[in-house]
Amino acid sequence: MEVGGPGFVVMAGPCAVEGAEQLELAARAVSQAGAHLLRGGVFKPRTSPYAFQGMGEPGLKLLVDAGRRHGLPIISEVMETEQLPLMAQHSDILQVGARNMQNFGLLRALGRLRKPVLLKRGLSATVQEWLNAAEYILAGGNEQVLLCERGIRTFETSMRNTLDLAAVAWAKERTHLPVIVDPSHATGIPSLITPMSLAAAACGADGLLIEVHPRPEQALCDGQQAMSPGDFATLMQRLPGVLAAVDRHLYTPAGPAQIAGAR
Amino acid sequence: MEVGGPGFVVMAGPCAVEGAEQLELAARAVSQAGAHLLRGGVFKPRTSPYAFQGMGEPGLKLLVDAGRRHGLPIISEVMETEQLPLMAQHSDILQVGARNMQNFGLLRALGRLRKPVLLKRGLSATVQEWLNAAEYILAGGNEQVLLCERGIRTFETSMRNTLDLAAVAWAKERTHLPVIVDPSHATGIPSLITPMSLAAAACGADGLLIEVHPRPEQALCDGQQAMSPGDFATLMQRLPGVLAAVDRHLYTPAGPAQIAGAR
Amino acid sequence: MEVGGPGFVVMAGPCAVEGAEQLELAARAVSQAGAHLLRGGVFKPRTSPYAFQGMGEPGLKLLVDAGRRHGLPIISEVMETEQLPLMAQHSDILQVGARNMQNFGLLRALGRLRKPVLLKRGLSATVQEWLNAAEYILAGGNEQVLLCERGIRTFETSMRNTLDLAAVAWAKERTHLPVIVDPSHATGIPSLITPMSLAAAACGADGLLIEVHPRPEQALCDGQQAMSPGDFATLMQRLPGVLAAVDRHLYTPAGPAQIAGAR
Amino acid sequence: MEVGGPGFVVMAGPCAVEGAEQLELAARAVSQAGAHLLRGGVFKPRTSPYAFQGMGEPGLKLLVDAGRRHGLPIISEVMETEQLPLMAQHSDILQVGARNMQNFGLLRALGRLRKPVLLKRGLSATVQEWLNAAEYILAGGNEQVLLCERGIRTFETSMRNTLDLAAVAWAKERTHLPVIVDPSHATGIPSLITPMSLAAAACGADGLLIEVHPRPEQALCDGQQAMSPGDFATLMQRLPGVLAAVDRHLYTPAGPAQIAGAR
Repeated sequence: MEVGGPGFVVMAGPCAVEGAEQLELAARAVSQAGAHLLRGGVFKPRTSPYAFQGMGEPGLKLLVDAGRRHGLPIISEVMETEQLPLMAQHSDILQVGARNMQNFGLLRALGRLRKPVLLKRGLSATVQEWLNAAEYILAGGNEQVLLCERGIRTFETSMRNTLDLAAVAWAKERTHLPVIVDPSHATGIPSLITPMSLAAAACGADGLLIEVHPRPEQALCDGQQAMSPGDFATLMQRLPGVLAAVDRHLYTPAGPAQIAGAR
Repeated sequence: MEVGGPGFVVMAGPCAVEGAEQLELAARAVSQAGAHLLRGGVFKPRTSPYAFQGMGEPGLKLLVDAGRRHGLPIISEVMETEQLPLMAQHSDILQVGARNMQNFGLLRALGRLRKPVLLKRGLSATVQEWLNAAEYILAGGNEQVLLCERGIRTFETSMRNTLDLAAVAWAKERTHLPVIVDPSHATGIPSLITPMSLAAAACGADGLLIEVHPRPEQALCDGQQAMSPGDFATLMQRLPGVLAAVDRHLYTPAGPAQIAGAR
Repeated sequence: MEVGGPGFVVMAGPCAVEGAEQLELAARAVSQAGAHLLRGGVFKPRTSPYAFQGMGEPGLKLLVDAGRRHGLPIISEVMETEQLPLMAQHSDILQVGARNMQNFGLLRALGRLRKPVLLKRGLSATVQEWLNAAEYILAGGNEQVLLCERGIRTFETSMRNTLDLAAVAWAKERTHLPVIVDPSHATGIPSLITPMSLAAAACGADGLLIEVHPRPEQALCDGQQAMSPGDFATLMQRLPGVLAAVDRHLYTPAGPAQIAGAR
Repeated sequence: MEVGGPGFVVMAGPCAVEGAEQLELAARAVSQAGAHLLRGGVFKPRTSPYAFQGMGEPGLKLLVDAGRRHGLPIISEVMETEQLPLMAQHSDILQVGARNMQNFGLLRALGRLRKPVLLKRGLSATVQEWLNAAEYILAGGNEQVLLCERGIRTFETSMRNTLDLAAVAWAKERTHLPVIVDPSHATGIPSLITPMSLAAAACGADGLLIEVHPRPEQALCDGQQAMSPGDFATLMQRLPGVLAAVDRHLYTPAGPAQIAGAR
């Protein structure tokens, strides 16, 4: 798989892996709608130590199995260096969360791998700091870095964060790294995910990372911002038109699974 | 003219009216490229009292004449209640700048007119405060209010401001007022204006307000962020594709000049 | 009265003048506790057009009378140029609110007066922009400008705004203008007003602007952030110790009523 | 040593340990001026992978020796779980930097120790998130947590960050944890460190963390914000007056070395 080429890549799935049934329903839905990767968190960074912290290794096994059943590579978050051996073995893309964007030990360890890393922008990181954080991984020799804009923290509280699409265009101008947009965390409002996804496609983003939950109202984590399978399917039908207008198209699997776009 | 209907409206021209030749070149360029209104400031709100403050009434006359020559209605900023009689007589749309979004005396005076008002969002105004400011005008009986997102002030300094496109979609959901996007002030970087304009069109904005200067490097005001006529023409050619993907199209003048979309 | 000299000046009173009894109780309380000026709004800038907008001219008369009865000069906010003749005649200091910091028409009109002006920092104004706004008044020949830090808008929502005391020290270094601190609007939390007032005194501020209401729970405007008369009296007893540690003292009326400190 | 009692604690020293001579000069200066702990970074979190990353273990040995020579306990930053065994053995207080405030794996590991931890507030962390991060350590059974306010990221760029002293008072109201203030990182401007230190003392902070460098202009890290030894000595002479006004005093070593103040 190539990220950062003409094909636009969509990664979708639940915020957190919660169990076999939830994951199967989610994986089936996003696969049928045309998503290219299955996302799902098994180690969850939570503001409070008393909140649900993720299923851990058993969740990872569920995620791998669901991806295999539906022919989808998987992406999952790695929070600590200690989790790297396990995660690097099973996850096709390793996600670094916003709160860890400047966890330099983790970045250096990821630089020693030869595995794609999706690096989320920190909540209050400038785009320059974001590129510098990517440089920690690249400097180690791992050139498969995907940037991910997921909203920044501002004074505005109507939405969860402020999606900074100009930063996407800015980063695309100044680096060869692919840039993915996460409208789910950025807005925290399901009805805004479709317009922001279309806007991301129009301004040059290389893909999307979207939360889809079979039953958003029952989610253990961030359910209030997850898309329903039906809304996600509709979005997938609307993306090609906007992509065509900017000379892109939805990614079509063809060659070997490989992440391109690094410098 | 209807703003807020299926036709997408583009307002373009220089930040400030600087003289007859500059304005004629700008007006000709934006008219030929297909813009629907001519913008140009004659009273300029400037951070420092020693910066160029605009040409005032003579500038307004130049703007009206240039608009007439090229068949374009005009939009210009009104900064003080005292300027209202003059501006209301000559400008087709009255613009309220970000720094005046909560100049309640001015808003009330605008509410007593029956003339379209474009209300820019304040640099640190929440979307709710922005809608409340519009309410000051609407409550006076003037229903022709256009909202304009022009970037908010955040920690990020790579760009002039942070364009908040999710606020555009949010405002479209919660009000019937048209929402215009100003990518020039929002980014302050010419190369970002095209991707942000396309993104605005994709996410549901009803139009654009763009700075175009015949010779950006010689502008007396904000020249570093103005588009060149050539880049603007290219943008106008790229907009229809994105608009078509979201069931919109560039506005085509037809009926009588009238601003719709208010509640 | 000299503001900006060794004597530290305290301005106190209700957010809004609500009626004769409320104002008399407030004026008596702040006078007995040792305040130097009586504050009270009669024209109120409110986010919503449907909120209490102030008593207007009748409120101003109540404020003048209450000040006279208790031997206190008064400070009140002017929102529009049209209010200037009335306010300049009756208010000893004219306050410009945060939302009007860049209402350049109002600033220029204040520059033509010879009357002290307290200029609040805008919610998202840099200190440099704040000084530039003061320059609009000074450039007109009115040298009696007092700066007032009242908190800036940030991502933090536990408090109403973020009090930026470093900006106070920064402004004191770079200008001769006196700097006043408004801990009431800055924090919006009564229990934080005393510690922030002491901190302001310690870091070089020249005075305070504090909301005191005889019955905070019944206030028509911002009551939740007003100090009770008892807490205010306690604060006034604690200030001299901190002021002495930085070679200052509470202002003692002596010479003629005059505002110093301008350039 | 008790932090959080009536005695106000001052931790001072260079941003980074650079060599034996620099550290000896710094340690001697802060010791003679009356500081209670010696600070110095040996593992440095840097935005860019190409900036000076700290001396590592040899630097730690220098720091321990300098502290011993001058009778000062030491505080140094720990960036990764892997550094914990080494740092916990030699550093009297373990510092967690702003960028690691939500490095939950590190926080959990610190919770398993029985050693004081100074937890800096994240650049864009709300006070509630800061307390939640502390909870990760406390929940593990390590009750010796010191909070440290070091400025938040806002739109204001005149200073490095915006020191949020109201958050100090807010945290003191809502928790029993001691709160330390770092005016060096918060302002990044040497002349503002003294006024902000006095303000911190006045509003209830329990101590200070200050950068002092024998030759600020030659520092390898953040030198532009370090205090000179002379200015630091003057600050130490000015603190007692402000502390006395709020019924506090500079800490005087007496009992056994022990950090109090935890829940």
